[in-house]
Amino acid sequence: MSVPVLILVTRPLDDESEGSTDARPAPFSQADPALPHLSVLDLGATRGDGVFETVMVAEGAAPAIDAHLDRFAASAKLLDLPEPNREVWRAAFDAAVAAHPPVELLAVKLVLTRGIEGQDAPTGWILAQPGRDFSRERVEGVRVVTLDRGYRHDVAATSPWLLQGAKTLSYAVNTAAIREAKRRGAHDVIFTSSDGFVLEAPTASVLLREGDRFTTPSAELGILPGTTQRRAFALLEELGYETGSVRLRSSELGRADALWLVSSIRRAVPVVELDGVAKAVDRELTARLNEYLGEH
Amino acid sequence: MSVPVLILVTRPLDDESEGSTDARPAPFSQADPALPHLSVLDLGATRGDGVFETVMVAEGAAPAIDAHLDRFAASAKLLDLPEPNREVWRAAFDAAVAAHPPVELLAVKLVLTRGIEGQDAPTGWILAQPGRDFSRERVEGVRVVTLDRGYRHDVAATSPWLLQGAKTLSYAVNTAAIREAKRRGAHDVIFTSSDGFVLEAPTASVLLREGDRFTTPSAELGILPGTTQRRAFALLEELGYETGSVRLRSSELGRADALWLVSSIRRAVPVVELDGVAKAVDRELTARLNEYLGEH
Repeated sequence: MSVPVLILVTRPLDDESEGSTDARPAPFSQADPALPHLSVLDLGATRGDGVFETVMVAEGAAPAIDAHLDRFAASAKLLDLPEPNREVWRAAFDAAVAAHPPVELLAVKLVLTRGIEGQDAPTGWILAQPGRDFSRERVEGVRVVTLDRGYRHDVAATSPWLLQGAKTLSYAVNTAAIREAKRRGAHDVIFTSSDGFVLEAPTASVLLREGDRFTTPSAELGILPGTTQRRAFALLEELGYETGSVRLRSSELGRADALWLVSSIRRAVPVVELDGVAKAVDRELTARLNEYLGEH
Repeated sequence: MSVPVLILVTRPLDDESEGSTDARPAPFSQADPALPHLSVLDLGATRGDGVFETVMVAEGAAPAIDAHLDRFAASAKLLDLPEPNREVWRAAFDAAVAAHPPVELLAVKLVLTRGIEGQDAPTGWILAQPGRDFSRERVEGVRVVTLDRGYRHDVAATSPWLLQGAKTLSYAVNTAAIREAKRRGAHDVIFTSSDGFVLEAPTASVLLREGDRFTTPSAELGILPGTTQRRAFALLEELGYETGSVRLRSSELGRADALWLVSSIRRAVPVVELDGVAKAVDRELTARLNEYLGEH
């Protein structure tokens, strides 16, 4: 097994006021991932109080890095965390990629926590390791169940403290939902709002095809704006298809001609079964999507 | 500032099958809290995937330790974590208390995470440090706002994967709600369900008085069974008051003769203002409650 590359981002924020560039410590440094680096007092570990992104690097290229850095900053803002220094994180990301032996697919995780309680200094790190191989899932697809996320579709607007739309470290519900899916004989979940709208998967966006029209649930529903979904739409538009972000009722999922879960590392995985009912799979388009997402 | 006592619980589970007692490593050991002890791959830190308890130790006594160990096991079960070995955790707790210099109030935190991704070995630790002094809040009270928790009152029954009723490390929403309260000029929050029932505070139970009857929202509403609330009820019953766990409408909060937030470290803090409206404070009963909670 290969050894992950760990970069500790020791100066994760914008701190230009702190004096001359020369006097400052390096903004990041490589560290041994086999050693412990986090305090048990870190609010990331004790409160899930932080944000993250997982960036795909395929054959050394990271086509979506800017979109991920945008979303990383947006998540931090939703949590009232200070703004991550984009240049520092970009350079640390490049350093992590450069330090890892070449692999086909690298999964690079960026994490920013609120830091040690009472110290007012966020903790940041980047971990690069080979991405799991999902080539089988891309062809064979996944069985999916719909599960209630418990929130109305409009809570991001009415109740921003629920942090919907932020990619936070408080992910226990997402992992619990996937365990529930497995208990039901499925692989993954599509969350629905308590008032019946389609939302997202725990770690992926949902893509639907109806005829020549492709849609995804709107980010206004308190879900993550999908970086991979956006790239998928770019291809679909090139191919002449109509695309759109919409509010979808759960019932519309069943009516769709085809469904995919799309995310950085898995790319486009077709849904072959939804709540126990078989779904048709467009193998040709799926293959084309995955080829494109591996390169763009 | 005093130095916290850290105990790493290296054998947090029941593992009697692992061979003779003599051959096994010690189930826990003291460690330096100033050093890092957690991997950046620990699912506690990357997914908020774990559970915790905070136990009050007053003058060396921990009257609620059994109730906390019960709830710790119940939370682990809700997360499909293996059952913590009660004897090990109890002994590690005692060791943490014994290792700390005597203080009036010690806050002892027990944490169990799902461990390092892929290793199937939970991480456990106990941290003991002096509890913050809330004697002023116990007299002067706190201003509270009600905030929507976003969930219906019945999601614990309909959607157990939402983990309501478990004390998890995915606490980012709780801290975000408290920041929202502060933006509104208040100190704390009482969560309400999306369908209008009173739930709990982010880190406390809610206690209401109406005449000679004291109530708290029922644990069936997907909230934590309060260990301090239970002790408060024991005193109130001794004093001849009626107590009960009930479903309360948000509107009933305003009608209550008096309101408290109760939790291990803060004990009983009177609510002096609810959503901008002053509440009466029963100073004598509050003092009596706090005296009792410090001892029982």
